Amino acid sequence: MKFTGRNVHIGKNVKIGEGVKIGDDTIIYDNVEIGSNTIISNNCVLGEPLNDYYNNLSYENPPLKIGAGSLIRSHTIFYAGSTFGDNLQTGHRATVRENTIAGRNCSIGSYVDIQGFCEIGDYVRMHSYVNVGQGAKIGSYVFISPFTVLTNDPTPPSNTIAGVTIGDYSQVTTSCVLLPGCVIGRNCMVAAHSTAGGTFEDYSFIGGSPAKRLCDIRKAPIFNAETKKRHYPWQYNFERNMPWEGVGYAKWLEQNEQDCE
Amino acid sequence: MKFTGRNVHIGKNVKIGEGVKIGDDTIIYDNVEIGSNTIISNNCVLGEPLNDYYNNLSYENPPLKIGAGSLIRSHTIFYAGSTFGDNLQTGHRATVRENTIAGRNCSIGSYVDIQGFCEIGDYVRMHSYVNVGQGAKIGSYVFISPFTVLTNDPTPPSNTIAGVTIGDYSQVTTSCVLLPGCVIGRNCMVAAHSTAGGTFEDYSFIGGSPAKRLCDIRKAPIFNAETKKRHYPWQYNFERNMPWEGVGYAKWLEQNEQDCE
Amino acid sequence: MKFTGRNVHIGKNVKIGEGVKIGDDTIIYDNVEIGSNTIISNNCVLGEPLNDYYNNLSYENPPLKIGAGSLIRSHTIFYAGSTFGDNLQTGHRATVRENTIAGRNCSIGSYVDIQGFCEIGDYVRMHSYVNVGQGAKIGSYVFISPFTVLTNDPTPPSNTIAGVTIGDYSQVTTSCVLLPGCVIGRNCMVAAHSTAGGTFEDYSFIGGSPAKRLCDIRKAPIFNAETKKRHYPWQYNFERNMPWEGVGYAKWLEQNEQDCE
Repeated sequence: MKFTGRNVHIGKNVKIGEGVKIGDDTIIYDNVEIGSNTIISNNCVLGEPLNDYYNNLSYENPPLKIGAGSLIRSHTIFYAGSTFGDNLQTGHRATVRENTIAGRNCSIGSYVDIQGFCEIGDYVRMHSYVNVGQGAKIGSYVFISPFTVLTNDPTPPSNTIAGVTIGDYSQVTTSCVLLPGCVIGRNCMVAAHSTAGGTFEDYSFIGGSPAKRLCDIRKAPIFNAETKKRHYPWQYNFERNMPWEGVGYAKWLEQNEQDCE
Repeated sequence: MKFTGRNVHIGKNVKIGEGVKIGDDTIIYDNVEIGSNTIISNNCVLGEPLNDYYNNLSYENPPLKIGAGSLIRSHTIFYAGSTFGDNLQTGHRATVRENTIAGRNCSIGSYVDIQGFCEIGDYVRMHSYVNVGQGAKIGSYVFISPFTVLTNDPTPPSNTIAGVTIGDYSQVTTSCVLLPGCVIGRNCMVAAHSTAGGTFEDYSFIGGSPAKRLCDIRKAPIFNAETKKRHYPWQYNFERNMPWEGVGYAKWLEQNEQDCE
Repeated sequence: MKFTGRNVHIGKNVKIGEGVKIGDDTIIYDNVEIGSNTIISNNCVLGEPLNDYYNNLSYENPPLKIGAGSLIRSHTIFYAGSTFGDNLQTGHRATVRENTIAGRNCSIGSYVDIQGFCEIGDYVRMHSYVNVGQGAKIGSYVFISPFTVLTNDPTPPSNTIAGVTIGDYSQVTTSCVLLPGCVIGRNCMVAAHSTAGGTFEDYSFIGGSPAKRLCDIRKAPIFNAETKKRHYPWQYNFERNMPWEGVGYAKWLEQNEQDCE
């Protein structure tokens, strides 16, 4: 009942892969490309025109590419001019502006607001209400929890954009503020409600307002409830939807590094 | 003009009580039951199918029940597989996932995101942007303010779900983080911007990051502006939309306890 | 493709100025007035009826006025009974309730929730997810960042409304809680993640939980990355979309003060 073709409107030069489903009341603007077997649920807006559209008669929509095998849940708005890799998932009512380059297997939660002009790696998972300011560079296998904001203006208001950088495998938990220009290394963990600025080395356990490096996360007494072992680096204790699912991180890493040689 | 029947789509086996109004552009999927005199405003989605719907040809929508006398404001999304008691109210664009069991006279504000698999008592009021993680157990007469999050993963990311518990009559004010497994007793008050973990006994006044029990809320020097008396326990000073409205809490409690005997 | 008139529904006594565009799937209820050359994008709801509408057969929608030259982005909901000056901009999915009086050249970001019964000056910019409680008085040239909440109930829950006041030119940065009755003077700066209550004089640099006046913002060692000069008062270093754009604040102020004489 979601895919009856009711009130679906599709612009010019839209490329729709094999097996794609498009939900009712969805609008797809010009120059959108959707990979095969992707599901666009109802009431979505893909290729939302940029501001120039409203006043420039010769406006041309920049291309939006969505990878294959994705599931775009209802009421998502994606602006024109972005690229998402395969197997993307969104929650409801996410908004992603132009010039967002995201890798494969990413998950963008409900009410997430990505302001565009940012880079996102593979297997990144944003929970609900994550706010990503322009200029952000987010690595791969990064998780960001609700109400966390990646800021970018060191002297509001100004014309300076100092985006946030987050390294691979890092966890930024709920309700954190990452201050302009903040650099979180790889394999870090930012505790809930932190206010983090400056640069943090790999494996930092970060917490407080202002946030400090509390210790090496590998030495933090944080244990996995199932295995009773130290939980971090978490890759050894969690594999759901990760590329090492069923293989284990250690083995996957070994295979992966061999592949690279 | 809201209830012209325009673009209303209703699935199979939908039971609609007497006097129900359904707003334009609203979609009701299979197996939804709506109590009498409930108003579903425009652009709502009721019985949103679970993930299995997208790939399983024999998918059957689990039932969604909405009590009588409710007012579901526009753009609300309720997944299939939940139950709400009578006199529910929602704001705009709330999202509630499956396996949410809520009592009567609840209020779910705009942009609220309830992740499902949770229990909510009677007369619970969530303001805008409350984020309820899976596994939460919320008592009755609980108020939760904007940007407050009930977390559940003690070691993100992991498969462990340690939901939050909030006792009857407790107030969780704005921008709080309730850490995984946190237990807030009955008649507690959590101050704004707190980060609370662990277990707090009844009548705790809780605040800080990390939050501590500051004192017994009954002894806190917090006075009602109208009565000039100590405000907590608040039931003696506030009755709007509460079951003791017009009767007073003391008398209502007495009657209620007698009824129980 | 946004303005084809598809599924546009317009109530009684709606006044639409010259050159106005109305997006597809937009609903405009009774007694709305839209200034000339304003663009209402798709899926908006203007003049959303107040609660009384659902039960009162003789309900009359109070007027909603939107100034000329505005751009209302998609999925915005404005209740009946408010007034917005010229050149308003909104993001996606903003919600503004009744009895909001806003000046000209304001910007209301995506997911913003304004609860109504409040006053907003000119050139106010709210980023995404700002929550404005009833009773707020916001001056002109004020910027408010994501996840910041202006509260109003000093003793939740109660019938007391003690709105927040923010003076002209003040910056309230991300994830702040302004406690009930908080008064922020003119030209203040509230640091990220602060919890501010009480009254702060003009030019205060405010930070912490609970927030204190850290120093005079004019003496804070915060430098503009372009000019290398002290950034605050920011008016001397930032002019994009401000009335002194192209003139400079000093000169504009001089002219303005002369105009007033």
